[in-house]
Amino acid sequence: MTIVLYELVGRDTARPFSPHCWKIAMALAHKGLTSSSVPTRFLEVPAVEGGISKLVPVIRDGEKVIADSFAIALYLDETYPERPSLFSGDGGKAMARFIERWSQLTIHPYINTVAVMDLHAMQDEPNAAYFRQNREQRFGKRLEEVVAGRDAGLNAFRASLEPLRSMLGYQPFIGGASPLFADYIVFGALQWARIASPYRLLEQSDIVAQWFERCLDLNGGLGRTVAAA
Amino acid sequence: MTIVLYELVGRDTARPFSPHCWKIAMALAHKGLTSSSVPTRFLEVPAVEGGISKLVPVIRDGEKVIADSFAIALYLDETYPERPSLFSGDGGKAMARFIERWSQLTIHPYINTVAVMDLHAMQDEPNAAYFRQNREQRFGKRLEEVVAGRDAGLNAFRASLEPLRSMLGYQPFIGGASPLFADYIVFGALQWARIASPYRLLEQSDIVAQWFERCLDLNGGLGRTVAAA
Repeated sequence: MTIVLYELVGRDTARPFSPHCWKIAMALAHKGLTSSSVPTRFLEVPAVEGGISKLVPVIRDGEKVIADSFAIALYLDETYPERPSLFSGDGGKAMARFIERWSQLTIHPYINTVAVMDLHAMQDEPNAAYFRQNREQRFGKRLEEVVAGRDAGLNAFRASLEPLRSMLGYQPFIGGASPLFADYIVFGALQWARIASPYRLLEQSDIVAQWFERCLDLNGGLGRTVAAA
Repeated sequence: MTIVLYELVGRDTARPFSPHCWKIAMALAHKGLTSSSVPTRFLEVPAVEGGISKLVPVIRDGEKVIADSFAIALYLDETYPERPSLFSGDGGKAMARFIERWSQLTIHPYINTVAVMDLHAMQDEPNAAYFRQNREQRFGKRLEEVVAGRDAGLNAFRASLEPLRSMLGYQPFIGGASPLFADYIVFGALQWARIASPYRLLEQSDIVAQWFERCLDLNGGLGRTVAAA
């Protein structure tokens, strides 16, 4: 059965950009599950599946509807245990949560700084208005002021990736010899930036950039099906 | 058979303080393995087991000698698979490496800043002289200058623990419902600080401090067998 994935898009429905939706697109492909994407704009999210969540991703798998990327990944692994695991054991499940919190608190704030104007420009008029109001309230300043800090923050951002960089000296993926959901968590953040903004987050020589390129190759090159901004 | 653990101590042989040795003391207890500690001063490390490593911990398990805390933990899990796991699967093994790098690069530098003079004061004369020379070369400044930065760095240190703090809102241990080696990795760092220095790293109300207290209770309260500085 085809799993339905509600994914955030802007004007161009072929350019899903949400980091959390990318985590699940990769997770579905990792498990070899057939899925179909429902392009969803910000203002359409509250109506998804009768209003199950304020956020996407949301999936429908037959009669089951699940929101929240981590919960979806857990659901997929529990429901389809005969397919390649996203966690490879209970320890991997537990520690993927640490990596999710690390990614969310270390990588996401800076990418917001970098890409918030680009994300705004990707929306149609009503969604752009919503996005500006929502994000300006969250940041407590104008989007133009948010993005003004990005050059000043670049070196600190690159330094903040040092734990990931150091780990990649031991193994090719966060999941070890091959990728797990933890890789898709961090991949989702960098893919969000790649699709939204031409800003150069990483030096090409950075081992983190090389890991990201490996992730773009995974699952039949799924990440490359949307061109970089 | 009793496993021999070479542990770093200062003048007081009953106060092992090394973060990496504490990881292994906890790992041995977690697995219910009988061990005996060989108190080892800095200047004695090069002679441990014929000079196998520049650092402790080192363990001897019968004919096998292993250095490096992560390698020791992997060895213990592979050699004693019938006992409680330190990783709970291959995913846990892989992601524990990320947590090790995060702990080493996020927590260790600040604890060095906080505790380096206290650590110096714990050594006998020849070891204190070695420690000062070695660490002043590493930091590129006098120990007194290193420690002078600790108050200024405290808020940033506490903020840097936010991924751990946030994760503890989801589950009681890094390992999930119960602790794994990943918990002992971070525990080791905070235990090093606890034993070496009276400096208050964390607010008591901090969920991270509460997790640390839970870790002190683990394995029969092993961490509490050495009093706080």
